[in-house]
Amino acid sequence: MTRTRASMSRRRPPVPDLVRYLAVRARLVERALEAHLPPGRERLRQAIRYSLFAGGKRLRPILALAAGEVAGAPPAVVLPFACALEMVHTYSLVHDDLPAMDDDDLRRGRPTSHRVYGEGLAILVGDALLTHAFELAARVPGVPPALALRALAELATAVGEAGMVGGQALDLAATGAGRRVSLGRVRAIHRRKTGALLRAAVRVGALVGGARPALLRCLTAYGEHLGLAFQVADDIADAAGGAGGDGRTDRVLGKATYPAAIGLAAARRAAVRERDAAVAAVRALGPRAEPLRGIARLVVPE
Amino acid sequence: MTRTRASMSRRRPPVPDLVRYLAVRARLVERALEAHLPPGRERLRQAIRYSLFAGGKRLRPILALAAGEVAGAPPAVVLPFACALEMVHTYSLVHDDLPAMDDDDLRRGRPTSHRVYGEGLAILVGDALLTHAFELAARVPGVPPALALRALAELATAVGEAGMVGGQALDLAATGAGRRVSLGRVRAIHRRKTGALLRAAVRVGALVGGARPALLRCLTAYGEHLGLAFQVADDIADAAGGAGGDGRTDRVLGKATYPAAIGLAAARRAAVRERDAAVAAVRALGPRAEPLRGIARLVVPE
Repeated sequence: MTRTRASMSRRRPPVPDLVRYLAVRARLVERALEAHLPPGRERLRQAIRYSLFAGGKRLRPILALAAGEVAGAPPAVVLPFACALEMVHTYSLVHDDLPAMDDDDLRRGRPTSHRVYGEGLAILVGDALLTHAFELAARVPGVPPALALRALAELATAVGEAGMVGGQALDLAATGAGRRVSLGRVRAIHRRKTGALLRAAVRVGALVGGARPALLRCLTAYGEHLGLAFQVADDIADAAGGAGGDGRTDRVLGKATYPAAIGLAAARRAAVRERDAAVAAVRALGPRAEPLRGIARLVVPE
Repeated sequence: MTRTRASMSRRRPPVPDLVRYLAVRARLVERALEAHLPPGRERLRQAIRYSLFAGGKRLRPILALAAGEVAGAPPAVVLPFACALEMVHTYSLVHDDLPAMDDDDLRRGRPTSHRVYGEGLAILVGDALLTHAFELAARVPGVPPALALRALAELATAVGEAGMVGGQALDLAATGAGRRVSLGRVRAIHRRKTGALLRAAVRVGALVGGARPALLRCLTAYGEHLGLAFQVADDIADAAGGAGGDGRTDRVLGKATYPAAIGLAAARRAAVRERDAAVAAVRALGPRAEPLRGIARLVVPE
C-alpha cells in the first residue's frame, strides 16, 4: 500500500493548503483543551489557563494528529493524546522559565507564570499540567487499552529522565560553565530536551493510529530529524536577537546552542540538512504525509 | 466469604507480627525501587536517589500491597504501582520543601534536596520522579491493560489539581495569611494534600488486585479515614515541637493545621476518631485485613 501511495504522490504531487490544515487542527486542539480545563474558581486553575492558552502554535498536538492521519486514525481518536502533549510542553516551559532555571521574565511577549503568580504557584502549575497530561492519556476512550498504555509509556519516557527532564538537567549544568560546549554535548541536550517530545508526538499519533512497524519507523525518523531541525532553527532565531520579541535573548548567553558550538553558518546548514532528512523520511508515504512534509518546510524555510 | 472471614476473626483474633509484616514489605519495596532507579552516572540520578533512599517508612507502597493482599493479589503484581506511589510521595516532598513553598532546610534529619543540589535540580528531581511513577505504572506486566489504565488514572487524579497539587496550592495561599484558618478549610487542604494519595494507595492496590465494588468501598473508606488520621497526627507531632528532629517546626507557624484550627485536645480526639473509623471500615474483612487495622493503630497509638 505504501508503494502505491508513493507512486501516486510522484504522479500527482498533492498541494494541500497547509495553512488551512494547521488552522483547522489548532482549533480542534484549542477546543479540546478548553473542554478539559475550563475556567475554574481556584487561582491554580487560572494560573494553568494563563500558560496553556497563551497563543501557542500547538505544533506537538498537530504533529500527533498528522501522524495519526497517516496511520489511518481520525483526529478525534488521537485528540486526547494531542492535548496531553501540549500540556506536557506547557509544563516544561513554565518550569524552564523559573528563576532557578532559565530565569525568564517574558514568554510569548507576556510575563512568565512565576512573574504573575509567584514561584510557588508556577511550580504547581507545571506539576498540575504534567499530571493532567497522564490522567488524560489514561482516560482515552476508543483506543484499545494495551495501545493506550504503550502510547502513555512512550510519552512518559520522552518526558522523564531519559528525555526532557534529563536534557534540562544537562542544560542547567552546561549554562554558564564558562567554556565552549562541544557539538556532541549540544546535540545530546537538544535530543533529550526538545527532540524527545517532538519524536514522541509523532510516535504517539502513529501508535494510537495502529501504525505497523515499517510505518512507525518512517514516522520515527521524521520525528527525530524534525526535532533537531526545530531546535537548531530555534537556536539560530535566539542568536539573531530573540526574534519574535519573546524576551529570550538572555538565554543565548553561555547556553548550549548550535551557533555557539559551530557558528551561525554551519548551524544554518545543519538545520537545512535535518529538515531535508525529515522530508525524505516520509517521502514514500504519499499525499497523506504531505502535512508532515509541509510542517518540516515551515520549521526551516528555504 | 466476607462473613465467614469475619466470624473467623471473631473466634480467633489473628495476631500477626505487624513489625515483621512491615519490615518484609518495606524490603520488597526497597529492592524494587533500587531495581527501577539504580545508581547512575548523571547528577540528576544521584539527586533522585538522595531523596528516594532517605529512610522513608514506605507507608504508601505498603498500604497498596496490604490492600492488594486483601483483594487477593500477590505483592509482586502490585509492586510496580507501590513503587510509583512512593515516587509520587517523594516528588511531593522535594517540591514542597522548596524555598518558594515551605522553605525547609531539613527533611528526615538531612539537608533537603535543594540545599544539596540547588533549586533548579531539585525541581527537576520532582519532575523526574513524578514522570517515572507514571512510566512505571504504564509498563506493569501481569495486570490486564484496562485495569492498569484505571489504576493509573486513579493515581493521576490523586496527584493532580483535584488532589495533592491543588491541596498544596490552597496550603500555600493559607500560609501566613495572618488569620486563623477554619476547620473546614484545614480539612479540605488535608483531604487533597495528604489524604488523596493515601486513599489512592489503598484503592490502587485493591483495583490491581481485582477487588469487587463492595470490597473497594470498604477499602476506600479505610483509606479516607486513615488519611485524615495520619495528617492530624502529623499536625499534632509538628505542634509538639517537630518530633523526630526533622527540622519542620517552622512549618507550624501560620500553617493550616488541626491544632491551629481547633486546639490540641480536640485535634487528639479527632485523630483517634478517624483511626477508629478506619479500623471499623475493614473490621468485617477478616484476618487478611489485620495489617491494615494494625497500620491504623500504628499511625495513631492509644
